[in-house]
Amino acid sequence: MWHYNSGKTFLDRLPHDGDLLVSIKEAFQRSGTKMGFFVAIGAVKQAKIAFYNQDDHKYHEFPVDEPAEILNCSGNVSELDGEIFVHAHITLGLKDGTTRGGHLVEGTKIFACELFAVPLEGEQIKRSLDDVTGLKLWQAGR
Amino acid sequence: MWHYNSGKTFLDRLPHDGDLLVSIKEAFQRSGTKMGFFVAIGAVKQAKIAFYNQDDHKYHEFPVDEPAEILNCSGNVSELDGEIFVHAHITLGLKDGTTRGGHLVEGTKIFACELFAVPLEGEQIKRSLDDVTGLKLWQAGR
Amino acid sequence: MWHYNSGKTFLDRLPHDGDLLVSIKEAFQRSGTKMGFFVAIGAVKQAKIAFYNQDDHKYHEFPVDEPAEILNCSGNVSELDGEIFVHAHITLGLKDGTTRGGHLVEGTKIFACELFAVPLEGEQIKRSLDDVTGLKLWQAGR
Repeated sequence: MWHYNSGKTFLDRLPHDGDLLVSIKEAFQRSGTKMGFFVAIGAVKQAKIAFYNQDDHKYHEFPVDEPAEILNCSGNVSELDGEIFVHAHITLGLKDGTTRGGHLVEGTKIFACELFAVPLEGEQIKRSLDDVTGLKLWQAGR
Repeated sequence: MWHYNSGKTFLDRLPHDGDLLVSIKEAFQRSGTKMGFFVAIGAVKQAKIAFYNQDDHKYHEFPVDEPAEILNCSGNVSELDGEIFVHAHITLGLKDGTTRGGHLVEGTKIFACELFAVPLEGEQIKRSLDDVTGLKLWQAGR
Repeated sequence: MWHYNSGKTFLDRLPHDGDLLVSIKEAFQRSGTKMGFFVAIGAVKQAKIAFYNQDDHKYHEFPVDEPAEILNCSGNVSELDGEIFVHAHITLGLKDGTTRGGHLVEGTKIFACELFAVPLEGEQIKRSLDDVTGLKLWQAGR
């Protein structure tokens, strides 16, 4: 468990036609922090999401090739290999009200998106490979 | 990007049979702020949600005429035409565990709802028409 | 409406194979608080969720017997019968990108989970039976 002071929160209007995952990363980069939490709502022109296969330890990506509401996109920012790393999951609402969702990957194009972000001031968490899950998880040495 | 101090957060139990969107607005009005972020969970007797058609620039509303869990209702509060404006997206869980979701509109009746709200102290964001999307978005002049 | 100072936020990596609801409770217990808000993302090996029947006032539980992404797990922590009580709702993403969700109950096994938690400093909210809904809700005596 890591404890933090919450820095100044920030809001951002992410760019039309921008890539959602990249835009969240860039917003945190502009704010000058590599630790944080965020929630976004809005809409996308199309999305690409992934499901992690817990047996073969691979992400399986699939597209959502239609406009969708971002019902919720939640996640965190930490560090991987010296770089800022955004981990985000997204829930999408389609035009008939049904939903899709998964791990957010690059390839999701923003129609409009409003980001609420909480930079966190304190120990920098770094991700490293966890043998059990095959995921790059927060280091347990704490 | 707009930076904020987080004011005192507040929790609220929203009123049984109240309208969800109106009740969130009234909670922020009572707290005396027009800027903020929130997340709510709970249940509704029925819901009305909308999908924004990115081609014809119109919201298409549709009802969810049955009780549902509020799996997540996230959004923000800013200003539109001098008034407090709540922008909320909702994910609903039906009795078989399947989900629906969209842009929250009036017509959603609360069964029980617990609101976590973060008033934000700083520049007041105002919404105005964005020609590209047809939406009333946060002003980019920042 | 109850107002709070946000204490130090905390992040936690919840234990592989742990029970999700229990692990969230234990994280707050370790942080020494009975009031708070949280959001988690990650993945589960299997889940158990519930839907509250608004007519017969009973939770109907059903399993999700397959691995799933935690698209969002949001909730709050207050007090019930002198004990810390976690109220959480979860949205799950299955391997085909479709989603399921409900009120989180014990029986949900963590694959990997990252918790963002906001302890709240102020009046301790206690839950008690609400006759109208049959739920144990935050007391209205405020």
